[in-house]
Amino acid sequence: MQITVLAGGVGGARFVRGLVHALAADPALGPDPSITVIGNTGDDITLVGLRVCPDLDTLLYTLGDGVDEDQGWGRAQESTRVSGELATLGVGPEWFTLGDLDLGTHLARSRWLAQGMTLSQVTARLADRWGLPARGVRLLPATDTPIETHVVVDDEDGGERAIHFQEWWVKHRAALPVRRFTVAGLAGATAAPHVLDAVRGADLVLLPPSNPVVSIGIILGVPGVREALRGTRAPVVGVSPLLGGRPVRGHADACLAPLGVEVSAAGVAGLYADFLDGWLVDDADAAARYPTGVQVRALDLLMRDQPGAARLARAALDLGRELRGTPAPVRRA
Amino acid sequence: MQITVLAGGVGGARFVRGLVHALAADPALGPDPSITVIGNTGDDITLVGLRVCPDLDTLLYTLGDGVDEDQGWGRAQESTRVSGELATLGVGPEWFTLGDLDLGTHLARSRWLAQGMTLSQVTARLADRWGLPARGVRLLPATDTPIETHVVVDDEDGGERAIHFQEWWVKHRAALPVRRFTVAGLAGATAAPHVLDAVRGADLVLLPPSNPVVSIGIILGVPGVREALRGTRAPVVGVSPLLGGRPVRGHADACLAPLGVEVSAAGVAGLYADFLDGWLVDDADAAARYPTGVQVRALDLLMRDQPGAARLARAALDLGRELRGTPAPVRRA
Repeated sequence: MQITVLAGGVGGARFVRGLVHALAADPALGPDPSITVIGNTGDDITLVGLRVCPDLDTLLYTLGDGVDEDQGWGRAQESTRVSGELATLGVGPEWFTLGDLDLGTHLARSRWLAQGMTLSQVTARLADRWGLPARGVRLLPATDTPIETHVVVDDEDGGERAIHFQEWWVKHRAALPVRRFTVAGLAGATAAPHVLDAVRGADLVLLPPSNPVVSIGIILGVPGVREALRGTRAPVVGVSPLLGGRPVRGHADACLAPLGVEVSAAGVAGLYADFLDGWLVDDADAAARYPTGVQVRALDLLMRDQPGAARLARAALDLGRELRGTPAPVRRA
Repeated sequence: MQITVLAGGVGGARFVRGLVHALAADPALGPDPSITVIGNTGDDITLVGLRVCPDLDTLLYTLGDGVDEDQGWGRAQESTRVSGELATLGVGPEWFTLGDLDLGTHLARSRWLAQGMTLSQVTARLADRWGLPARGVRLLPATDTPIETHVVVDDEDGGERAIHFQEWWVKHRAALPVRRFTVAGLAGATAAPHVLDAVRGADLVLLPPSNPVVSIGIILGVPGVREALRGTRAPVVGVSPLLGGRPVRGHADACLAPLGVEVSAAGVAGLYADFLDGWLVDDADAAARYPTGVQVRALDLLMRDQPGAARLARAALDLGRELRGTPAPVRRA
């Protein structure tokens, strides 16, 4: 059973961790179920000369049991001694937290990239450090081509200016009105090795409740990925990131509105309509109208904790099996 | 009163700090005595992609009251969380300590260099952070040209290999026999702005008890520096780094022997004979023969603490004044 997941940061990482637990507890899946996670690189940023990949790092730390569980990103037991010194020296943006342990990752990644390794190779090395292969997880960046999401916002003179996505997201908490998103490098990017094959050859493709515009939307924008999703023999099952029209966390609403997309589970499904087979929505959204041909299942969508994430992953697995014509296993409550 | 000092790391920094205190307590020096420190850059090294300048940093931290007093280098209250993570990732040499606070310096320096600043400009900015101008100290790197000292040692096959000076000094504790020292980039280096003028225009030039080969010797190797010392109207007064034929700290003995220079206060004076006017030696070395024309003063040369460093600096100032024909001030004991 080969499962491929397109993931953003916190929501994606928690869903994948739930998936790992759900698979471990599910004998119906046969031997060696394996998960390939295709991570978003659109919010990558270079800070103090170091390459930072927030979504890949959140996936690594979460799946490797090293994440700060309360905030959902960054390292547990983190400290900020280096960034305190950098602030004294007036270096680096004060709105982005560079923890000391996290800086170890960024320094190593930057060093390896400078030595000529690709982001895929770097990510594989980091995944080894975090024990992902032993958990049956392979982590791939969507692309090795450096891409960066920019947000075009109003400037003071009535014109517009582009700021880095992280500045908009972290510094301005997505509160600056958006004219449009642009992704530098995306049109000319190449899918990283194994990415397209992982979509085409999967038994099941899952979309966690990640941001449909700036996380999954970026992965879909890598040339070839959307076509692979349309062409794959595997069912594609997604989880709505919106519950009752609101994101559980993050700012999906602020990302959808500028696109003219309805801020709802149905609106997000519409973005995926050309390849989506199954769609998990919250009970609150059961009555909405969804794109034709998409099997919709309503349930309590909130991932309150790790068992909740595993329950959600199990629901996605079950819907996937149903779409493949294989009945879901009978489970004790 | 313009005083120019050629300095290495720990010994040089402690001497200069003593000099600052001695000058502050000495009304005979007139208004605004100022100190220009020309720092050694020969042991600079690039680690994990970051430019590290051990001697400049030791000068900054010591003169800025931020140094780890026990070890003489690095930051007080230092931690090593980043390097612990780097070790987990197998990045960076395990024999070189990169403290968290220290990494702030290296990250800032590397960033500024990458932005096109010279090492002089970077050093001036760091000196501002550490309050050196307010203490009357200007810190200059000897050169803005990247240079690196290598140590040629025996290899296993009876041949030779070159290792970075820091590897020899820190990892091997200067215990590997030296065939010779080479300094990549030195012959083509240019003295940093103000360096030659600071030597030529000084009222007094001081050589602290720094390593005569790999610290002061490197500064002397920057084209133009030795000629400026020969030509300056200022007396040049040095402090022997050897007491009774042994270094107080560091490995000057292991550096002198491969040059065929006698490991003694007299041997070191011989290295400076073409420009040296005054030489402070330990009482134990009073009876040796010194180069003709060098005024030698014997005293207790050990800098046991900050008052001891100030006392030594005062002795150097007094000898300098005597050589200029100005009597030393009468002081109460």
